[in-house]
Amino acid sequence: MFPKNAWYVACTPDEIDGKPLGRQICGEKMVIYRGVEGRVTALEDFCPHRGAPLSLGFVENGRLICGYHGLAMGCDGHTESMPGQRVRGFPKIRNFAVEERHGFIWVWPGEASEANPTLIPLLEWAESPDWAYGGGLYHIQCDYRLMIDNLMDLTHETYVHASSIGQKEIDEVPPTTRVEGQEVITERHMENIMAPPFWRMALRGNGLADDVPVDRWQICRFTPPSHVLIEVGVAHAGRGGYNAPAQYKAASIVVDFITPETETSIWYFWGMARNFQPQDAVLTDSIREGQGKIFSEDLDMLERQQQNLLRNPQRQLLKLNIDAGGVQSRRILTRLCEAEQQATSSLIASA
Amino acid sequence: MFPKNAWYVACTPDEIDGKPLGRQICGEKMVIYRGVEGRVTALEDFCPHRGAPLSLGFVENGRLICGYHGLAMGCDGHTESMPGQRVRGFPKIRNFAVEERHGFIWVWPGEASEANPTLIPLLEWAESPDWAYGGGLYHIQCDYRLMIDNLMDLTHETYVHASSIGQKEIDEVPPTTRVEGQEVITERHMENIMAPPFWRMALRGNGLADDVPVDRWQICRFTPPSHVLIEVGVAHAGRGGYNAPAQYKAASIVVDFITPETETSIWYFWGMARNFQPQDAVLTDSIREGQGKIFSEDLDMLERQQQNLLRNPQRQLLKLNIDAGGVQSRRILTRLCEAEQQATSSLIASA
Amino acid sequence: MFPKNAWYVACTPDEIDGKPLGRQICGEKMVIYRGVEGRVTALEDFCPHRGAPLSLGFVENGRLICGYHGLAMGCDGHTESMPGQRVRGFPKIRNFAVEERHGFIWVWPGEASEANPTLIPLLEWAESPDWAYGGGLYHIQCDYRLMIDNLMDLTHETYVHASSIGQKEIDEVPPTTRVEGQEVITERHMENIMAPPFWRMALRGNGLADDVPVDRWQICRFTPPSHVLIEVGVAHAGRGGYNAPAQYKAASIVVDFITPETETSIWYFWGMARNFQPQDAVLTDSIREGQGKIFSEDLDMLERQQQNLLRNPQRQLLKLNIDAGGVQSRRILTRLCEAEQQATSSLIASA
Repeated sequence: MFPKNAWYVACTPDEIDGKPLGRQICGEKMVIYRGVEGRVTALEDFCPHRGAPLSLGFVENGRLICGYHGLAMGCDGHTESMPGQRVRGFPKIRNFAVEERHGFIWVWPGEASEANPTLIPLLEWAESPDWAYGGGLYHIQCDYRLMIDNLMDLTHETYVHASSIGQKEIDEVPPTTRVEGQEVITERHMENIMAPPFWRMALRGNGLADDVPVDRWQICRFTPPSHVLIEVGVAHAGRGGYNAPAQYKAASIVVDFITPETETSIWYFWGMARNFQPQDAVLTDSIREGQGKIFSEDLDMLERQQQNLLRNPQRQLLKLNIDAGGVQSRRILTRLCEAEQQATSSLIASA
Repeated sequence: MFPKNAWYVACTPDEIDGKPLGRQICGEKMVIYRGVEGRVTALEDFCPHRGAPLSLGFVENGRLICGYHGLAMGCDGHTESMPGQRVRGFPKIRNFAVEERHGFIWVWPGEASEANPTLIPLLEWAESPDWAYGGGLYHIQCDYRLMIDNLMDLTHETYVHASSIGQKEIDEVPPTTRVEGQEVITERHMENIMAPPFWRMALRGNGLADDVPVDRWQICRFTPPSHVLIEVGVAHAGRGGYNAPAQYKAASIVVDFITPETETSIWYFWGMARNFQPQDAVLTDSIREGQGKIFSEDLDMLERQQQNLLRNPQRQLLKLNIDAGGVQSRRILTRLCEAEQQATSSLIASA
Repeated sequence: MFPKNAWYVACTPDEIDGKPLGRQICGEKMVIYRGVEGRVTALEDFCPHRGAPLSLGFVENGRLICGYHGLAMGCDGHTESMPGQRVRGFPKIRNFAVEERHGFIWVWPGEASEANPTLIPLLEWAESPDWAYGGGLYHIQCDYRLMIDNLMDLTHETYVHASSIGQKEIDEVPPTTRVEGQEVITERHMENIMAPPFWRMALRGNGLADDVPVDRWQICRFTPPSHVLIEVGVAHAGRGGYNAPAQYKAASIVVDFITPETETSIWYFWGMARNFQPQDAVLTDSIREGQGKIFSEDLDMLERQQQNLLRNPQRQLLKLNIDAGGVQSRRILTRLCEAEQQATSSLIASA
């Protein structure tokens, strides 16, 4: 259950560097590549000639060439040419709305005519020289909503990530959740605590003492269909916490774009954006490596949780206060999916 | 098709040493661990909060802590506590009757209220200093009854284990099978033969000549649900065979506890108990290694036999005299399963 | 969808050298071995005793001995003996018509009584000292008809095999296809072109200049159920092409026997027969290695094409002129399968 008329991160630019990429998104098998003038293109991954996956082919002068018999596909899904053939009658394949923005390739797996690029979230950190970004991609066998739950309830850090970002104080401070339009915000502020290992590293990386009490914050923001951006940070205690001046804090944004592959698998684009020492590439790599390790700790849990849920479809899960972020996010998703279904139904009824 | 109201070996103590174990038994996913005061506990492997497998967590002061969000589960399936939560209304998860006895953890996957620990088989060799035991565990993709068949008809030794315990004389002496209550006994006595390699090793290990004729015996005892204990041995010929005085023979008990995981897969606990040189740990290891190798020869055959049977559900198998042990064991199992089903049906009817 | 009353290549003699082979052909699980006097035998791979696969056993004096309990199976599917048993009443297992000819083992997976060995194709190159043959076997997850399509339309060489036998001139010369009885012939003749790398090697191997223009030909011959023999070669330009005298050309026959395992998997026996330097074993090995590498380039494409087709059962594929060879071959196969089905239906109706 996922909205199809929405922008999802399909891939990063390096994944289509010099060759087409085959990827399934929201149940749709796509080939994504740089077409005419390097513009990103996404098509159904199915050659109209004999059904070969076009992603096994190559790009030549902006046209996607099928690797089986050389059919040349245009960016609109119409075959442009094929050696020795007249192609005018060839059936069109589906093309998807796709945009390259903020360092990601975004795709709209539903009705291309409804795709509005202004709905792509504005990521200021991606466009400013004051920020640096590093991230990665995991393929996980779980419903994308389990990952949203995971990110909208950071109490799991205490258990899953005990050695890096977890600490018992997270459990002790209840989060607050509010809904603002289609945005769900869950936040937690911990005062006068000692920073856990990851944040000590960040404090040192930022030239700050790491052995003094800090105020720590986590502000999770869900926006549909499945973006979770989390402001996280620590400031030397008593300097204003989240609002402390830059010289007293280490802060960053945890970036999570969760793209359903099927009903029970996802492409998970994770990363971290920071606005301190943005020019320090070694620090970027070191943070990426640390974050990658921490986030990989969730994989097994999520996949095994998914298996447990599939085996027990009748079981009701609890919805505690700590789960409010996920619960509210799911409500928005349910409404969006129902609206999509009704639109489809009335389209059929009026036909 | 397996009885659920019965004691099965769930695991060995070393498997729950310091951490919970997740294991599926008779279709039930369980987490098994040492709870309060080290007492073995078995619960449904499903956290009532969000469905995470509890077996990914850890044990703290006898309580099982969920590795996702820290729910603390009590040994009776009631949640004891959870950081920041009132847990009184949390749904209970199922707990299973479980006992630690004779060096094994036994579980009753059916109705816990019907579990009677006195039904656990008495294993004298497991409690006496005169005996030594070594064994192992195999995970096999076959119906547990195929393994019972295998163990109740040792003519297969001649073919599957030709280089260790097989010998043509096994084929030449027909076995006799009898049923005593719920026990099935198949035995074979071979007289004045040369011992095969495994038994020559055992004779030497016992300080006996290995190049003289022996009398050899195999007495297989099935008891439900799926325990097969086999008295095996050789004695110098003419000394009384099975009843020969200890100084003329090498004898032991092959131990087989077969625990269904699903309808077509098993946890197979195998081992050997001997009452000669019980203090010799090197001999124990050497026998375990030899037995492990021999028993691994059955795996491929059993799994491929299972596949063949699944592909040919309509085929009738032959029931020869050599198969009588397995056939009688299956009859007892069928009766037990039917009785269980009737009990369930009348429970439903009277409700 | 494949004819079952037809000869398929089951294996090569080396595969049954000293031990039985288990192989599924047209949905039938078979055990293939050398029985009495070394004659090839194919039986259902199912022991009538307890369903063990007979292919896990061994051959003794022409009888197949079950590796589980020693049942001795005769070449006609009747049990010959079993230790300690009377076997007269044992159910017969199915035996398949099988022939060893032209360096291959051929099997008829349908009605054995209808198997006519004269229907096995005559392979002159396999019986003549003027020819050498080398080949291999691939297991591919695709419908056997996708492989027939592949071989009956060699335009794919330009794209799939660009670095060895592909060249743009293949695309530029349209093939012609004709049907002669149950044979489909697709041919293409290219004149005055430069030879691609594989053929340059063959020219040199044949003592001919490789840097002069050549005439190149490809004559694909499909015969049911799934044999595709392809005459390929190059001759120095202007010497008569296909009909040029032997001293001006390098020619060979690409041999393809495609045996369905299931509806969507095949055993693909590929090879090359050549009539130049037949005694040169090093050349045979070098050609086999080169061909094996080239043919392996098709595997991923065929398997991914198959997956695409399974996901899109409603999609119609295009049937272009270049596809005519495959299209005509499929028509013959459809007729043969329909005829088989009607024969079965009337058999049932008259019963």
